[in-house]
Amino acid sequence: MTALYAYDAWYPLAWSRDIGRNLAQRRVLEQDLVVYRTQQGQVAALEDVCPHRLAPLSLGTLKDDTVECGYHGLRFDCEGQCVAAPGMARAPTGAAVRSYPTAESMGMVWVWMGDAAKADRNEVFHLPAYDDPDYSVVEGDALPVQANYLNLADNLCDPTHVVYVHKTTLASTGREETRVMHERQGNKVVTWRWVIDGPLIPVFQGLKDFGGANVDRWHYYHYHAPSIAVIDFGSARTGTGAPEGNREDCIQMYACHFITPVDQRSCVQHWLCLKNSPADAAVDERLRANLRLAFNEDKTVLEAIQRNEDKPRDWKRIHLSLDASSIKMRRIVDEMAAGNAH
Amino acid sequence: MTALYAYDAWYPLAWSRDIGRNLAQRRVLEQDLVVYRTQQGQVAALEDVCPHRLAPLSLGTLKDDTVECGYHGLRFDCEGQCVAAPGMARAPTGAAVRSYPTAESMGMVWVWMGDAAKADRNEVFHLPAYDDPDYSVVEGDALPVQANYLNLADNLCDPTHVVYVHKTTLASTGREETRVMHERQGNKVVTWRWVIDGPLIPVFQGLKDFGGANVDRWHYYHYHAPSIAVIDFGSARTGTGAPEGNREDCIQMYACHFITPVDQRSCVQHWLCLKNSPADAAVDERLRANLRLAFNEDKTVLEAIQRNEDKPRDWKRIHLSLDASSIKMRRIVDEMAAGNAH
Amino acid sequence: MTALYAYDAWYPLAWSRDIGRNLAQRRVLEQDLVVYRTQQGQVAALEDVCPHRLAPLSLGTLKDDTVECGYHGLRFDCEGQCVAAPGMARAPTGAAVRSYPTAESMGMVWVWMGDAAKADRNEVFHLPAYDDPDYSVVEGDALPVQANYLNLADNLCDPTHVVYVHKTTLASTGREETRVMHERQGNKVVTWRWVIDGPLIPVFQGLKDFGGANVDRWHYYHYHAPSIAVIDFGSARTGTGAPEGNREDCIQMYACHFITPVDQRSCVQHWLCLKNSPADAAVDERLRANLRLAFNEDKTVLEAIQRNEDKPRDWKRIHLSLDASSIKMRRIVDEMAAGNAH
Repeated sequence: MTALYAYDAWYPLAWSRDIGRNLAQRRVLEQDLVVYRTQQGQVAALEDVCPHRLAPLSLGTLKDDTVECGYHGLRFDCEGQCVAAPGMARAPTGAAVRSYPTAESMGMVWVWMGDAAKADRNEVFHLPAYDDPDYSVVEGDALPVQANYLNLADNLCDPTHVVYVHKTTLASTGREETRVMHERQGNKVVTWRWVIDGPLIPVFQGLKDFGGANVDRWHYYHYHAPSIAVIDFGSARTGTGAPEGNREDCIQMYACHFITPVDQRSCVQHWLCLKNSPADAAVDERLRANLRLAFNEDKTVLEAIQRNEDKPRDWKRIHLSLDASSIKMRRIVDEMAAGNAH
Repeated sequence: MTALYAYDAWYPLAWSRDIGRNLAQRRVLEQDLVVYRTQQGQVAALEDVCPHRLAPLSLGTLKDDTVECGYHGLRFDCEGQCVAAPGMARAPTGAAVRSYPTAESMGMVWVWMGDAAKADRNEVFHLPAYDDPDYSVVEGDALPVQANYLNLADNLCDPTHVVYVHKTTLASTGREETRVMHERQGNKVVTWRWVIDGPLIPVFQGLKDFGGANVDRWHYYHYHAPSIAVIDFGSARTGTGAPEGNREDCIQMYACHFITPVDQRSCVQHWLCLKNSPADAAVDERLRANLRLAFNEDKTVLEAIQRNEDKPRDWKRIHLSLDASSIKMRRIVDEMAAGNAH
Repeated sequence: MTALYAYDAWYPLAWSRDIGRNLAQRRVLEQDLVVYRTQQGQVAALEDVCPHRLAPLSLGTLKDDTVECGYHGLRFDCEGQCVAAPGMARAPTGAAVRSYPTAESMGMVWVWMGDAAKADRNEVFHLPAYDDPDYSVVEGDALPVQANYLNLADNLCDPTHVVYVHKTTLASTGREETRVMHERQGNKVVTWRWVIDGPLIPVFQGLKDFGGANVDRWHYYHYHAPSIAVIDFGSARTGTGAPEGNREDCIQMYACHFITPVDQRSCVQHWLCLKNSPADAAVDERLRANLRLAFNEDKTVLEAIQRNEDKPRDWKRIHLSLDASSIKMRRIVDEMAAGNAH
């Protein structure tokens, strides 16, 4: 019997920039959380319900590092312990809400939804390029998608949809029928494709001047189960040896997708982009707009699929060779949910 | 055990004017369809779901006479056969979506939802007056009604509601208490009423000058199960023998209602009007506005009834003599659904 | 086995000012009612559904003291008896809708939802101050609250939430930690608290000049099960003996809450305020605005609680001493619902 979710994992919760000295409400794996930053700057995440009358604690007030319920004033500390109750000399024994371990990395707050004893902050996801001065960060959105997060995960393991879904943003004209490779590496699936000697795709235009020459383009889709995708994609002038590993004079981007599974029918896609060129307000805004457009193209398809999946029908499906990565990825999530991974 | 719907029947699907060289989405008998016109002008109707990932095909692209899925580019021909799949030399065996027979008649696309082998285009509904040069056509709307289509059908078998629902549009003042007759004819129920020596009803005013004289007015409600109603109504000067069959100098209209059952709680009422007077932009627009108002009066009542029917109550109902036509009509639909009609 | 509601009780139905010579629709204890005033000024309340086709009678027409169905013209008198049916010499035997006893008191129409034989108009709620010339009436709203009416009832038995929910309206600064008392009296629970020697609360300011002196403030929450709350609250200058019963020179208000339970997830909070000072347009409007703000603060909390209660979770709750009144109040409602009260 597999659990509904892989609980023992670090999940993206919110952009760090959105969590401060006020009470924020987030929903992860069907759990409502109240999230805030302590006076020392740590992030606290508590179950968002007062055990007295079930009022959401996020409707209450942050007092020092405690949350005061907005209905009767019960107060809970960062560990979820009730430290004050109205009309009582001391808080009732056993009164507490669940507290969740948190961490911060890559501008993101992460939360551990499973057994707190297993939470190891050294395992929180971090990409070295995020701290590399040769790279600049373009922070994106928190895009709500009314679809199961694994359907979004499928999409982020799959280079073949680009030419059909992203005609005007991420796709080049033609040349997409090159072979897709993939490989499981631990709890990660890597899927990749090279397009040799093709034109620059729209989203790269203006980032580097190749003098109109054709380029070799790579896409490496790294899917870290259960909910992180990093797409390493870039281009170098054809003939300079990029496929053999020489990326000396290239455009490179990491499109990072940090997915918060909300419930079985919705998720939040937090995305950011790292690029090996300096920050530039105009260029970055154009890139952000392009990516926003592309990810909304996916959202349209994924939400329509979800509506079909929700219909009480006995769908017959066919499988294609391009599904191989997705199948491996879902198997890892199943293993993690069954508690036999790692 | 009766099926939920009479599948072996031609159902109204869409106005012909609304189906062209793009992908339209329609829902009929709880089936989603993608509908388009081929280069030769035929109408194709396919199940609106790609069997690969369940994306609606209507989100894709029409390429020649095939539909290309907007997610991974699988292509389906007019018969629903998959003719191309990405990364595969040929389409997977057995990959197909269901295709539905279609026909066109009276400015309407019709679809056969049952056993395709039984579909006979000669049986598609057609009213001779539609092609008669003495009649002009006033095309109406595609009115969505959040009610079971049989409740709308009841309404279209029932002359007695007019005086209560359509006070300012279709009803005359008084004189409605004349006898209603009805008769089953094959899969049709005809219900009729005559009002002798009464004033002209509002909707007829301006169409013909009777010099202020009273008229004899007839209403023949032809309900062709499961989902077509034609209401033949008109007026001739009293004393000229209309009840005996002389309609030489009369106003006559056919109000045609082509109902698309969407599911058990909603339908689309496509309506048009034929009249034995020439097309006239101002007169026709006034007529269209009048009928639109009248059919929206029905919609209000029918949707309120549906909301009551949806309540978890054990309603006790009473039956009146005016229900006789409706009971016969529903019996025919049941017979058709059970497959023992025709 | 307890019934879902205490049916044998007078329930608030609508403001008297809102019921006239037209058909109003109200929903009480999951029953839809059509409500109107007869030519003699009595209020009639009938089940709002025609037993013929289930059209809501409230879509019909008031004719003299009968309701004519808007679909086929069946007519029902004030007792719910069908007195006319179209095409029939007399109404069908047994055709009737349920009729409910009504009464009027305190500007409110009341309805008896249970066994009509037990309805006694002498038991309709009435507060003597309503007719006392020393008091003026400030009529409030009919506030829809998407919460079970007993959760609103909890709130109206509970002085301790005031300081947390109504920071800027009804609460004083500090001094709230005084002892709360309560007592069951028949089918009523009274809960009270005194605050001695404190400042005037915002909602009282401007009503009487105490020359800046501190006051003794009382709150008596009278909850008459199942759905009436009267909060007697006021202030007198400290030292003048208010706690001992001398209210000679005081501010006093009765905040009356007449709750219409709509279903298990929604109710309507009809409120009005009586005060022992003359009507004054400006003062009254400010008071109304203040109370409207306060009751909307409750609404926010109660609706959030309802959303939590509706989640398929096995909540663990803690109980505090402040819950004692609420527990007693709910026990009375259970007794009434079980039919063993009175």
